[in-house]
Amino acid sequence: MISGERFSVIYRLVGSEKEAIKKALDICLEQTVEFPEELVPRGMIRDHVVGRIESVTPISQASCRVTISYAVETASGELTQLLNVIFGNISIKPGIVVEEIYLPESLLKSFRGPRFGRQGLRKLLGVPHRPLLFTALKPMGLSTAELAKMAYECALGGIDIIKDDHGLTNQVFAPYEERVRLCTQAVAKANQETGFKAIYVPNVTAPYNQLFQRARFAKEVGAQGLMISPALAGLDTMRELADDDSLALPIFSHPAFQGSYVTSAENGISHFALFGQITRLAGADGVVYPNFGGRFSFSREECRRIAEGTETPMGHIQPIFPCPGGGMSLEAIPDMLQVYGRDVTFLIGGGLFRHGPDLVENCRYFREMVEKMV
Amino acid sequence: MISGERFSVIYRLVGSEKEAIKKALDICLEQTVEFPEELVPRGMIRDHVVGRIESVTPISQASCRVTISYAVETASGELTQLLNVIFGNISIKPGIVVEEIYLPESLLKSFRGPRFGRQGLRKLLGVPHRPLLFTALKPMGLSTAELAKMAYECALGGIDIIKDDHGLTNQVFAPYEERVRLCTQAVAKANQETGFKAIYVPNVTAPYNQLFQRARFAKEVGAQGLMISPALAGLDTMRELADDDSLALPIFSHPAFQGSYVTSAENGISHFALFGQITRLAGADGVVYPNFGGRFSFSREECRRIAEGTETPMGHIQPIFPCPGGGMSLEAIPDMLQVYGRDVTFLIGGGLFRHGPDLVENCRYFREMVEKMV
Repeated sequence: MISGERFSVIYRLVGSEKEAIKKALDICLEQTVEFPEELVPRGMIRDHVVGRIESVTPISQASCRVTISYAVETASGELTQLLNVIFGNISIKPGIVVEEIYLPESLLKSFRGPRFGRQGLRKLLGVPHRPLLFTALKPMGLSTAELAKMAYECALGGIDIIKDDHGLTNQVFAPYEERVRLCTQAVAKANQETGFKAIYVPNVTAPYNQLFQRARFAKEVGAQGLMISPALAGLDTMRELADDDSLALPIFSHPAFQGSYVTSAENGISHFALFGQITRLAGADGVVYPNFGGRFSFSREECRRIAEGTETPMGHIQPIFPCPGGGMSLEAIPDMLQVYGRDVTFLIGGGLFRHGPDLVENCRYFREMVEKMV
Repeated sequence: MISGERFSVIYRLVGSEKEAIKKALDICLEQTVEFPEELVPRGMIRDHVVGRIESVTPISQASCRVTISYAVETASGELTQLLNVIFGNISIKPGIVVEEIYLPESLLKSFRGPRFGRQGLRKLLGVPHRPLLFTALKPMGLSTAELAKMAYECALGGIDIIKDDHGLTNQVFAPYEERVRLCTQAVAKANQETGFKAIYVPNVTAPYNQLFQRARFAKEVGAQGLMISPALAGLDTMRELADDDSLALPIFSHPAFQGSYVTSAENGISHFALFGQITRLAGADGVVYPNFGGRFSFSREECRRIAEGTETPMGHIQPIFPCPGGGMSLEAIPDMLQVYGRDVTFLIGGGLFRHGPDLVENCRYFREMVEKMV
């Protein structure tokens, strides 16, 4: 019943080595049997089901890196339950951060991962080498016609990926179906004029019973990607969206409502694991997150770790695009290239409007700037 | 297009009054138009769509309570988008805590809320006055037969609600369908002997494409409630589960993977709003959370605030049961009664096994203790 195969999680635990070991022993029970230690049945449960401390390494006087392994069978091949074993109940305990995750092929095989990945997305967009250019249609309150005009201009100016702002869902200002139909048409029209292969990516974050309807509608009218906020709709909902062969569209993950996992230094999930490893397991081809130096507070090092997480080896699970955005300006691009290299998607929303009065020209300037640099 | 109706959120913002006002102005933009202030179009968008600061009250030298209102239309009648406006992008910014939410009837009408609520659950269980008794089947690794025997004994001993441990999904040790069938039968058999109305509540937290299948299977074989971890499966997935008329079962919300919203004092969602208000909006009839004094770190005051959140007036949205658990012992009950009063569900898992060697007797002791006290 137990294969002996195990997956492991590196946790950073606050406390001295002695305290960390105590905390680690507690995690071994809490995340599996959730039972008083003295009552855990002997045999298979005690020997295999209970988590196992593999190593303890002090990293300062006040924290340790601890590796704990779990039987592959505890995760039941389910993303929901895998996340539960990794960080379910202990998300409620202070002083525990999930740093990295290591899954053997016997568990990875349960997950398809990104359908496109970096290579597939580059192929779809016809952009073999340079960083990808990404923008968002906004502000909320504009009419569908205004948003479609903006989509047209962005595509005309050479932006590769044009997405809904993540706050656009089905508001009266620009109802979903009308918006998606017109924006898709607008981008297709621009592509005919430019010869480029820009894609429009609607936001399908929606109530449970409407999300797949919206995704199917998008596919029907010719949209070429989907964005979802997994913390609002469910990480496994994103996984299902990515796995759906009748959709077969690239998926972009948006970090709305996800921030609390990374804002505390003493509880949560590392940038590397959350925006890199877990987002890939959940099928996204690109992960949106706030870049350093913008209007959010991620550090340069945290962003670098996200980029590492998007490409760290994970068996057959493909590398994906880091999509740093969030108050980015065109001026930040040279510095971002230094950190991310070519395999990055620059997401500029408001900053693209700020540059000058003509949106098409601003987009061209953005594209030329990137083309010249690489 | 804009009704003029607004909902509001009380945020606690870290910083002096001046800093808090700056942060609040930023929230007004970030959560709606996500656009540079100077570029926000005049008219409807600037006047209505952008969030509005309604009040700023310093609560210490280093923090303020700030009320911000948003146009009802920004939420589009969707739980996913409502949560996005309340805390989407700003979940990524430090120093912001959602304290309380106020929704007008024009927005509340989009949500059915708990189907049973406190009254409905008491009626289902035939327990008009006293606190409800709740336990969990565990540890993971036991066979279906062993879990069913445990369910039988708990029901025989007078426990009202017998749930799967939240880590039991579809593992090889006790596969879902077999477990749910046998545990349902076991509890029904005990009810025939006792005349009680105990219910078995399987955990339906599962991958997107299996969750409703599992819930329907549970209904078919006669299970009388469902448990879900909304942070793993999606808060709106729980809402859909509660709203499904073909299921029409009480829903219990489990806090696995949800803790990071409440573990930091400077970023997240208050216990009151998350485990009370939001969980009710998302349709749960009972909310499981770690009690003070157990093996987690919630304070007595935080737990009291959760209980308040489960019953604070929210239009037609019914009050629900707080279900404090997490390392609770029988000895803690008198003190818990002081904090929660009668409208509480005591969740004891491992502690019930610790009391003595005979599980049925332990359950009887637990029940008699509670019956005597109220």
